[in-house]
Amino acid sequence: MPSSKKLVRLGLVGLGFGANYADHIRTGKVRRMQVTAVAARDRAKWARVPEAQGFPSAGALLASGLVDAVLVATPHTSHAAIGIAALQAGRHVLVEKPLAVHKSEAQRLIAAHQDQRLVFAAMFNQRTDPFYQKIRELVRRGTLGAIRRVSWTITDMFRPEAYYRAVSWRASWAGEGGGLLLNQCPHNLDLLQWMVGMPVRVRAFCNFGRYHAIEAEDDVTAYMEFPTGATGVLTTSTGEAPGTNRLEIAAENGRLVYEDDRLTFRRNAVPAAEFSRTATEPFAKLANTEEIFPITGHGGQQVEVLQNFADAILDGAPLIAPAAEGLGSLELANAMLLSTWTNSTIKLPLNGRRYAKALKEKIAATAGQ
Amino acid sequence: MPSSKKLVRLGLVGLGFGANYADHIRTGKVRRMQVTAVAARDRAKWARVPEAQGFPSAGALLASGLVDAVLVATPHTSHAAIGIAALQAGRHVLVEKPLAVHKSEAQRLIAAHQDQRLVFAAMFNQRTDPFYQKIRELVRRGTLGAIRRVSWTITDMFRPEAYYRAVSWRASWAGEGGGLLLNQCPHNLDLLQWMVGMPVRVRAFCNFGRYHAIEAEDDVTAYMEFPTGATGVLTTSTGEAPGTNRLEIAAENGRLVYEDDRLTFRRNAVPAAEFSRTATEPFAKLANTEEIFPITGHGGQQVEVLQNFADAILDGAPLIAPAAEGLGSLELANAMLLSTWTNSTIKLPLNGRRYAKALKEKIAATAGQ
Repeated sequence: MPSSKKLVRLGLVGLGFGANYADHIRTGKVRRMQVTAVAARDRAKWARVPEAQGFPSAGALLASGLVDAVLVATPHTSHAAIGIAALQAGRHVLVEKPLAVHKSEAQRLIAAHQDQRLVFAAMFNQRTDPFYQKIRELVRRGTLGAIRRVSWTITDMFRPEAYYRAVSWRASWAGEGGGLLLNQCPHNLDLLQWMVGMPVRVRAFCNFGRYHAIEAEDDVTAYMEFPTGATGVLTTSTGEAPGTNRLEIAAENGRLVYEDDRLTFRRNAVPAAEFSRTATEPFAKLANTEEIFPITGHGGQQVEVLQNFADAILDGAPLIAPAAEGLGSLELANAMLLSTWTNSTIKLPLNGRRYAKALKEKIAATAGQ
Repeated sequence: MPSSKKLVRLGLVGLGFGANYADHIRTGKVRRMQVTAVAARDRAKWARVPEAQGFPSAGALLASGLVDAVLVATPHTSHAAIGIAALQAGRHVLVEKPLAVHKSEAQRLIAAHQDQRLVFAAMFNQRTDPFYQKIRELVRRGTLGAIRRVSWTITDMFRPEAYYRAVSWRASWAGEGGGLLLNQCPHNLDLLQWMVGMPVRVRAFCNFGRYHAIEAEDDVTAYMEFPTGATGVLTTSTGEAPGTNRLEIAAENGRLVYEDDRLTFRRNAVPAAEFSRTATEPFAKLANTEEIFPITGHGGQQVEVLQNFADAILDGAPLIAPAAEGLGSLELANAMLLSTWTNSTIKLPLNGRRYAKALKEKIAATAGQ
């Protein structure tokens, strides 16, 4: 039987934003995949995916025998429990970002992936963007040389009060385990560690409810130090309008800037450190040339990740984002919150149990208010 | 007697970079000013300003009766002592940036300005740049509305090792009281506080000798909080090539970006906070329009400050940079170093005596090595 005849029977758990995935699949954007079951507590939502059978819970969906794979698109607090149940039931799993609300929970989820025949992926769809792919390639191929500084300002994620009012769990400690860092920013945190690796120290300054009537952070500035000695700043907010999305990487061989759909590399004539050592004039300037990479579009995004999930299941295609790699972005988000709460620099890898305890205390303190 | 006939007889103390000022004056770029005396320990340097009489010390120059005013262009450690002597001798004073190496010393210098008939100015020549003047005007007139974030990356100040090797006092604690923050950055620190005011809290991460064989900082990232709740990041380095000079101000009424000789304002259709409160769609986007200010050139710089100094002495013209305003940039530089040394957030105003003590300890510790 040719593999083109095979089909992934997908169970969709969570019909909020998740229903959009069913639309992509139904309209043929994703090949060899069909939504055969959906799970949502609110039965009225089942009609949103008429081709699928509805179930009131993930457990009922898993027990139905109707699905080979599960897409977990519930609020973050239930990602781990549903993901673990699905893996234990022998289903392939694609989980929405973030993997979980804290590192320990995500580690438990990843540990449940015992059967390596099961495909376990995460929805880090921005990895399909050719701009970020190109940046990663330039870093990994050594085109940039050693990285000295990474500055990323991501403030183009404005949300009005209506956004937070619309869903009660948003940007609350109990409901989401955070705000901006757990909801809007996971993609950027993932891309950061995917492109340049994880920092070893983080000192962050989160502002809680600065722009909105919410418990959690809607504004973050974080200073990072990388194992190579490179430094970095991440600045992000859902309160600024109009915002900025600018990534700048200063490196030995030049400076890379990504902003306004333009990726520009100013390439040094010789590496900066070598020039510094050998120049004889006190005010010597290092020559450089500008290169603009001809990139258009932002890739297949969610559709491409769905297709990749199907291809991985049916053909063994390598995953765009193995779920285990989702630990990095979550660790960064957790570390930034812990740094602010403790007014201190956090060394990575993060102590997951310490963070889980701190978050639990935050939830308890808020519930008591 | 028409004021055009009057002349300021200037004594130039320090003939390193200072000799360039004499060139500007000799070649007629500055009206109604003449260098009549110079002071430098190394007599061979006197010939650099042939029109002036040479003296081996500032004291001898002041005692000569040949000067109405003094320009102090010695290494920073002697600015205060020479400035105080000149003011006490009844001379007008123009002092190079920074005013001194630490706040307490600068306060002593400012306190010596008892006779308000004497003009006391500082060489903050970048205040003559029409780009920065326009930004200040947009802030002060309320065009931007309340400021939310100020991010300034100033890494276009690359210096090779040869720069630090050329002069022994550079970037040493004893010789300069710091590196980047005391030498290259005072202009930017001054402009920052001149445009948007002083922060109330500073948490900085200075890297000492990161790019060069020097004692002091050549790389700084600083997080700032302003009295209004606005936040900010300043990133600066003498090790990056090619560098960046980009100032971004996110405000209620829009976003201002200054980079590559272009000042751009994206003006919001309504203020961001009002839009956030009133928008009914969770993903509502705030419309904006782009405005590019037609500015060319960077002003008269040092020549303009020299002319302003003469005009203030002869006609009572208001100063571009009264020396007392030089305290802000020095306080920021000191606070960033102290924050790094103490691994803590520094509240402003800075405790000047605490800083002086910390710097003294740093000098002693280094001398002992």
